Amino acid sequence: MIDFALTDRDRELQERTRAFIRDSIIPREKDPRQSPHGPSDELRRELNALARQAGLLSPQCGPEWGGMGLTHRERAIVFEEAGYSLLGPMAMHCMAPDEGNMHMLEAVATEAHNHRWLKPLANGDIRSCFAMTEPSPGAGSDPSAMNTTAVQDGDHFVINGTKWLITGAEGAGVMIIMARTLIDGADKGATMFMADLPNKAIITERILDTIDESMAGGHAVIRFDNLRVHKDDVMGEVGRGFRYAQVRLAPARLTHCMRWLGAARRAHDIAVEYANRRKAFGKTLIEHEGVGFQLADNLIDLHLARLAIWHCAWVLDQGRDARFESSASKVAVSEALFRVADRCVQVLGGLGVTGDTPVERIFREIRAFRIYDGPSEVHRWSLARGLASRH
Amino acid sequence: MIDFALTDRDRELQERTRAFIRDSIIPREKDPRQSPHGPSDELRRELNALARQAGLLSPQCGPEWGGMGLTHRERAIVFEEAGYSLLGPMAMHCMAPDEGNMHMLEAVATEAHNHRWLKPLANGDIRSCFAMTEPSPGAGSDPSAMNTTAVQDGDHFVINGTKWLITGAEGAGVMIIMARTLIDGADKGATMFMADLPNKAIITERILDTIDESMAGGHAVIRFDNLRVHKDDVMGEVGRGFRYAQVRLAPARLTHCMRWLGAARRAHDIAVEYANRRKAFGKTLIEHEGVGFQLADNLIDLHLARLAIWHCAWVLDQGRDARFESSASKVAVSEALFRVADRCVQVLGGLGVTGDTPVERIFREIRAFRIYDGPSEVHRWSLARGLASRH
Amino acid sequence: MIDFALTDRDRELQERTRAFIRDSIIPREKDPRQSPHGPSDELRRELNALARQAGLLSPQCGPEWGGMGLTHRERAIVFEEAGYSLLGPMAMHCMAPDEGNMHMLEAVATEAHNHRWLKPLANGDIRSCFAMTEPSPGAGSDPSAMNTTAVQDGDHFVINGTKWLITGAEGAGVMIIMARTLIDGADKGATMFMADLPNKAIITERILDTIDESMAGGHAVIRFDNLRVHKDDVMGEVGRGFRYAQVRLAPARLTHCMRWLGAARRAHDIAVEYANRRKAFGKTLIEHEGVGFQLADNLIDLHLARLAIWHCAWVLDQGRDARFESSASKVAVSEALFRVADRCVQVLGGLGVTGDTPVERIFREIRAFRIYDGPSEVHRWSLARGLASRH
Amino acid sequence: MIDFALTDRDRELQERTRAFIRDSIIPREKDPRQSPHGPSDELRRELNALARQAGLLSPQCGPEWGGMGLTHRERAIVFEEAGYSLLGPMAMHCMAPDEGNMHMLEAVATEAHNHRWLKPLANGDIRSCFAMTEPSPGAGSDPSAMNTTAVQDGDHFVINGTKWLITGAEGAGVMIIMARTLIDGADKGATMFMADLPNKAIITERILDTIDESMAGGHAVIRFDNLRVHKDDVMGEVGRGFRYAQVRLAPARLTHCMRWLGAARRAHDIAVEYANRRKAFGKTLIEHEGVGFQLADNLIDLHLARLAIWHCAWVLDQGRDARFESSASKVAVSEALFRVADRCVQVLGGLGVTGDTPVERIFREIRAFRIYDGPSEVHRWSLARGLASRH
Repeated sequence: MIDFALTDRDRELQERTRAFIRDSIIPREKDPRQSPHGPSDELRRELNALARQAGLLSPQCGPEWGGMGLTHRERAIVFEEAGYSLLGPMAMHCMAPDEGNMHMLEAVATEAHNHRWLKPLANGDIRSCFAMTEPSPGAGSDPSAMNTTAVQDGDHFVINGTKWLITGAEGAGVMIIMARTLIDGADKGATMFMADLPNKAIITERILDTIDESMAGGHAVIRFDNLRVHKDDVMGEVGRGFRYAQVRLAPARLTHCMRWLGAARRAHDIAVEYANRRKAFGKTLIEHEGVGFQLADNLIDLHLARLAIWHCAWVLDQGRDARFESSASKVAVSEALFRVADRCVQVLGGLGVTGDTPVERIFREIRAFRIYDGPSEVHRWSLARGLASRH
Repeated sequence: MIDFALTDRDRELQERTRAFIRDSIIPREKDPRQSPHGPSDELRRELNALARQAGLLSPQCGPEWGGMGLTHRERAIVFEEAGYSLLGPMAMHCMAPDEGNMHMLEAVATEAHNHRWLKPLANGDIRSCFAMTEPSPGAGSDPSAMNTTAVQDGDHFVINGTKWLITGAEGAGVMIIMARTLIDGADKGATMFMADLPNKAIITERILDTIDESMAGGHAVIRFDNLRVHKDDVMGEVGRGFRYAQVRLAPARLTHCMRWLGAARRAHDIAVEYANRRKAFGKTLIEHEGVGFQLADNLIDLHLARLAIWHCAWVLDQGRDARFESSASKVAVSEALFRVADRCVQVLGGLGVTGDTPVERIFREIRAFRIYDGPSEVHRWSLARGLASRH
Repeated sequence: MIDFALTDRDRELQERTRAFIRDSIIPREKDPRQSPHGPSDELRRELNALARQAGLLSPQCGPEWGGMGLTHRERAIVFEEAGYSLLGPMAMHCMAPDEGNMHMLEAVATEAHNHRWLKPLANGDIRSCFAMTEPSPGAGSDPSAMNTTAVQDGDHFVINGTKWLITGAEGAGVMIIMARTLIDGADKGATMFMADLPNKAIITERILDTIDESMAGGHAVIRFDNLRVHKDDVMGEVGRGFRYAQVRLAPARLTHCMRWLGAARRAHDIAVEYANRRKAFGKTLIEHEGVGFQLADNLIDLHLARLAIWHCAWVLDQGRDARFESSASKVAVSEALFRVADRCVQVLGGLGVTGDTPVERIFREIRAFRIYDGPSEVHRWSLARGLASRH
Repeated sequence: MIDFALTDRDRELQERTRAFIRDSIIPREKDPRQSPHGPSDELRRELNALARQAGLLSPQCGPEWGGMGLTHRERAIVFEEAGYSLLGPMAMHCMAPDEGNMHMLEAVATEAHNHRWLKPLANGDIRSCFAMTEPSPGAGSDPSAMNTTAVQDGDHFVINGTKWLITGAEGAGVMIIMARTLIDGADKGATMFMADLPNKAIITERILDTIDESMAGGHAVIRFDNLRVHKDDVMGEVGRGFRYAQVRLAPARLTHCMRWLGAARRAHDIAVEYANRRKAFGKTLIEHEGVGFQLADNLIDLHLARLAIWHCAWVLDQGRDARFESSASKVAVSEALFRVADRCVQVLGGLGVTGDTPVERIFREIRAFRIYDGPSEVHRWSLARGLASRH
């Protein structure tokens, strides 16, 4: 039955997370142990400890692994609150790429693998990364263009190739690697491999300068130089890499939406507070319709973004294929939140382009969000294809 | 608990309405008894009879008055299906202004009044109209500028003034009149009066030519020439007109959204069908991303519009004040559906500007929707004021 | 040298046209001899006579044919003024399709042909039409899909096929027909043929209902039933139809922009006047930033549209290929003017959706303009192709 | 006469600047002597020397002061080319705020002042800054809220107050200060004062972190602590500060448009090159309409932005009041260029959010441009007021 009421548990989770972010994380936002490539590992561990203490670590993981075992709808509520601070998701260990990696491991990996990797991951002992994207002419929006290869050699696979935009690679304890697999010269499709880090055959060529700066470790360019992975460290089965990637991508795309909804709401709250305080031409900014209408549009955008997220989370909770919903949500939410952040910058005027409020950085983060996990164009293409194939 | 599942009853209502529209109404869309001022009364009565037979007449009314007694969420489902044909809401007697009038009467009027007016209305024996809006400099977006007056004279009120854009006045059996009430020279605020039609003191000056043409009777300019209304025909209490108008407006605004969502979906379906069939430059239109992306955006707009409607209907079902949600939905949905209709025209190309498909007319109807029941600007103003008053 | 100054002649033309439209045409806008398929031929002839008297007939034609011999830049100035009334371009005989037909004939046809057809056309004795577009699956945006054929038979060509959206066919004195030409079974490409009207082998199947209603004769569906055209009535040479169409299309696209710029300016002036007069919530509409900002955006859109037109007209005056400029102008101007018209409807509120001001009709006409002479998508496609081919 | 032809001198200037930027500046873009607060003074002097050698230093200044004496239209051509590299305007010393300051000094200051300050400024010996904007609740978009005061004390004025977003203050040799002037307790309005830097009564409280990073010295917060300025160092006359600011602002706003037009063109060229090279789903990106249409829209936006700039420059060259044109251009151009930059980021995908191409930084710079020299809202407000006052 169509229902938008939060359960008591929903409200308790929402309030607890909100209080945690407000009381424990926002006061630490100016901690100097942050760089354009994200917070330091020391800072991350401190914040993880706070979240663990608040019972808010790894909400996406099952309790058996040390997480909170939330449904997708509960994640929607909790991740939005976490995202209210750009440090929040990292603190609660529900940030990309760890959140998606844990989700995928729990769904796909063997119990042995999960004891080895998911458990320390869920507990915040290590971070992880996901090495799929490649620089031109390799696998970007079109994963079938993958150039990294894993050639079987006895009980091992030998991996060579270059990846880039590998979020969090620097400082991670484990890497999930996607590579085209060749066995006796035959292309067996893409496979996922697990590799502990650091590893001297996995070379960080450089950390990219990017418009965003929230993600621990930044985004790296990685080169595999004859990396040998034992066949026991294949995640799941050989040749099923793209299928597992789908398990990861639809929810991961949606959790991006959840977290950045919180960030956009933060920007909006700051803009509303400012517009109620700052005066120009004899009245407060918000009394100027030119400003007030922008904030009204923010309300509408935030409201509809939240509904789209909740709906897609509900579809995922039904165990149904959510490709349509997650593509539609990714486009709608990322573009709506960008409009919100952009209007907030504009309402703040000169203040909006400075680092004196978090708005400027939220604007930059959300600009990147319109690209990450598939730019809008790829999702529109996929939605359009859905319309075509019905005929 | 957040839930988007339709109940069995929801599905039955949805399927029954869909089948009724498909089988009984769409085949009658080209009935010649229609003019730019809507379908004739004869046609209306025939279609009402079909709906009555299908158990689909006056879905918004309680069963005691002859309706279906639907919740707001059920209306959302049923009205969307009704709107799939521009004749559908009229056939099912859930079109503006009758739908809103019945809703208000049921909520506000006395049992005696409802036996006199709601019962025949719900049964499709008569149509009704709502005379609030005035030409400049009278009451438009700002109802406080009302110039029509009702002066008490013994047991009667004598009403004078001019109204315009009075939908359905021509051919209606009853009119609800809003007028500023003067008792012994004192302004008692706005009151609603009931008046049977035709009435020689209620003069139709002309029927306006408008961009839309679905509403029975069109939109009239009305002059009250010393109309005498007995005090027993005051609806509710003297001076509470604006309060009752609020009872009418929030849900009425939302049912507009529901019906036109169906209309926009129709336009989209036609555009998708055409884009899968028409070829240009060696492939079908939908294989051109320039077309496919527009249809993908339609999907997103329709999806989010539906979610916004469902949410607001849920709030109304809780008996809560839905002013924020209905204002936000009116802006979001009317603008989203207009984008959908506009894209459909564009995808159809030359065909889109002709009457050969319903798309051209849906485009015009939805343009008017962006004005009716409060233009976007009034709702943005109201949303912005909400943000200001909190501080 | 970059210069935006009008010459004395420019100003005289501008003022004379403006006065003519204001004094002679606007007062006749409500002439009852108009239908949804445009003004009657009687009305057209009367208005042409007024324009002839004012020295303003057929401004695009050389004086030797009875026109004013204006450069493209002068046309930009004069056509904008003409477009200020939806009857203006028809009155001055610079409306589509006649304007483009005269332009093409003058550039391409033989002197004999021009004495036979251009002369009476330029003088307003007859109207003309241009039969290129076909219904699906024929030639629409992609003219290469042309299905109408002209098969040589001795000294004649025998034409069969169906055209649609043939503007002004009803009531025209001459038709220019585009058909795929077959000589001895060989496809010789598209050819243009001249045919006097009426002709019993050229059958008007119906006049389409369209969203616009300014064009004399409306838009017809035409069937050729073994139409025989003598080889002397081939316009120019066999097989060069598409090349001649280019001669027609780039300037014709631009004159659409010019005329509708005038129409949008009219809508804007009406909206500004109304916004200065109508009050709501204690002040005039224009004092509400929510309205004032829309009118400010109108100013910007009108200004940039005019500059784009002037620039493209200048390129045409240099005798240079203006395909880029005319495609860019068509997209930019048609979309800008539509935004203007849409905002004017919105600013007028309820009044905006009625026929009480010309705004509602201007809105509809400009919606069609976004399709006519190539929808935006075709021009964007062509611009994008230009970017690709350079590499 | 309407004309868009470049003169021979225009072309020579354009080609010389283009070559200079291509050959001398772009190769130095990665010079390490740059920080988020702009290039170092050492780097600036080296680049100024290169421009001086190329005859391209201080194009906006008269030759008598060492500049090129360009008209506004010539500046439009030259500054666009300069802006093609984010280092270009700084190299040619036509960057904000120096460019606007030189323009104002030349127009307003005495010959003595200009020998003292304009001459070394035009020659690149020093940089300058303009201290007008204040933090809330002081002078921002509404300059009348100015809180900084200059109190006359004998032959001196004593200045106290705080300014912020003072571009280039750090490292400048001269500051132009706007302050409310009090003489014998009477408010004499705003006055401009000249002050050499460094000065111990002019305290740089901090350099702001901002989304842009091109401007030498960054944007500072400045505090005046009993700064004493001799009355001879009043620029122009007491109380005429706002009038002089107008002399500065309209052209300064336009030169921003010119420079960033070049920057946006650079981003577009990079995106076009990439879209022609990068493949996805079996074809180059540009062959995907979803990409190609975005680049087509870039072409249109760049084209119209250029026309708006040229037109406004022409108005300035006529010596006419260009307030309408410069406000309209500021809104139209800044928003168009932002769309261009945003699309370029999107077309580049993952690459677009990295510093591997200049696009990411151009995107950030142009975001700031939408605020600097008056956010769009202030200009829309001013345009709307113009429409109101006519009635």
